[in-house]
Amino acid sequence: MRLAALVAYDGTDFKGFQRQAPERGRTVQGCLEAALAQLTSVAIPVEGAGRTDSGVHASGQVVTFSSDASHREATWLRALNALLPADIAVRAVRRVDDGVHARKSALARSYRYRILCDPVRAPLRERYAWRVHQRLDVAAMNQAAGRLLGEHDFGAFGSSPRDSRADGYRGHTVRTLLQVECEWRAPEGDRPPDEVECRFTANAFLTGMVRRLVGTLALVGDGRLSVDDFQRILEARAKAHPGILAPAQGLCLTGVHYPAGLIDWDVTEVAPPEDSGA
Amino acid sequence: MRLAALVAYDGTDFKGFQRQAPERGRTVQGCLEAALAQLTSVAIPVEGAGRTDSGVHASGQVVTFSSDASHREATWLRALNALLPADIAVRAVRRVDDGVHARKSALARSYRYRILCDPVRAPLRERYAWRVHQRLDVAAMNQAAGRLLGEHDFGAFGSSPRDSRADGYRGHTVRTLLQVECEWRAPEGDRPPDEVECRFTANAFLTGMVRRLVGTLALVGDGRLSVDDFQRILEARAKAHPGILAPAQGLCLTGVHYPAGLIDWDVTEVAPPEDSGA
Repeated sequence: MRLAALVAYDGTDFKGFQRQAPERGRTVQGCLEAALAQLTSVAIPVEGAGRTDSGVHASGQVVTFSSDASHREATWLRALNALLPADIAVRAVRRVDDGVHARKSALARSYRYRILCDPVRAPLRERYAWRVHQRLDVAAMNQAAGRLLGEHDFGAFGSSPRDSRADGYRGHTVRTLLQVECEWRAPEGDRPPDEVECRFTANAFLTGMVRRLVGTLALVGDGRLSVDDFQRILEARAKAHPGILAPAQGLCLTGVHYPAGLIDWDVTEVAPPEDSGA
Repeated sequence: MRLAALVAYDGTDFKGFQRQAPERGRTVQGCLEAALAQLTSVAIPVEGAGRTDSGVHASGQVVTFSSDASHREATWLRALNALLPADIAVRAVRRVDDGVHARKSALARSYRYRILCDPVRAPLRERYAWRVHQRLDVAAMNQAAGRLLGEHDFGAFGSSPRDSRADGYRGHTVRTLLQVECEWRAPEGDRPPDEVECRFTANAFLTGMVRRLVGTLALVGDGRLSVDDFQRILEARAKAHPGILAPAQGLCLTGVHYPAGLIDWDVTEVAPPEDSGA
């Protein structure tokens, strides 16, 4: 049977999603495949919707795989979670149609990035956020972010994952950004907001794209770039620009979106597209 | 000069606050004293307001120490943070009067405890919360918690820190609970609340008291104890009751309260007493 799993992980101690030679470090795909092999006694490859980088988190990654085992969905869920390490969990399992593929069937992905604005180190916050010293102008960031909406060549902000193909083929860098939004957030109810959360949904993302977008939006937020500067960087499509690659720990893959009916998570299992993610 | 420091730490990799023989593991007090020794070239003992257990976090711990060095407050702050490991930070430093002592001068301490209600493992949430399978009846928990307000013998829920004295002296177990409140919390803006946050302020706490209170309140929340059962447990003052010790990772020391004017943190540095903590 064909199965889809909703997967969450704390990316801190993973060398990214994609399977690698074991001596290069543990990966999410490697851990999932090891748990499946242990459970079924056969090697089962899994496909992931998003190839998250080393250190990037996920609350709504989706993987698909095929198996001859005829467990119920709840049994897969319980058994996999019993076998997986503490920093990775399967949040839900669904039986799906044979043609469903986590990456190829996906219409869009959602990421969020959290920026903590605090001049002093904050040990309880920095595992899941990038700390910057100054407060940011979120209105300016949103104005700049608005220029990204729709179809653009995002070559300034990332590479096609296919660039590394052995035959030298270079993939194109046009993507469609469906949603982008930056917002102040107060993680501690009554306290003044000190965190900027940026949410992105696109049909697909280039490698490093969200982190470069955030690194450059932060320069708009602290006044070093104007909104028009930002737009010129986008239009130049060249990677030689002042935006930095924002660090991995602020980034989280919050959801993957499929045609209606293809994979039916419960509403409590995954956030809807317009939501801030799980 | 006499100095007070506001200290935050991720307790996961600490064997609690209190200094121990180095072979028993790293402690917060040990790390602070090591940083001070490195900075000043003399051994400087620090006093902490709350002796947090192994694995317990703090966003608002307070320590005091004395030094002949005449650095400015901002210099102490920068220098200590440069020397301390990533999981502990000094959030603020203030010069104080000679008689000020982090523990002895404190009027009250505030703790918060977070319970995540989720039947499935959640790797991005469980570092700072205790996960339980079922949703809890927060109204019943608050009703039970209300019975704790005021002065009581809390012997059912903890031991006096003095019980371990070599001469066999047993400290009394009467404490005054000034504030207690349980509340649903939605850490992800638009999603339904799935976390119960319990906040406690008392003149002082017994060893393990917050964790035993939370473990027992959770039994009220899942219907295994009635509010009257809970009150009988309090009144019996015996430790032989069904409440479990809730795990350390859900607990955080959020603030220590002093007489007005004794240590003046900025409002952005520490939360006011009635607040949910930093």
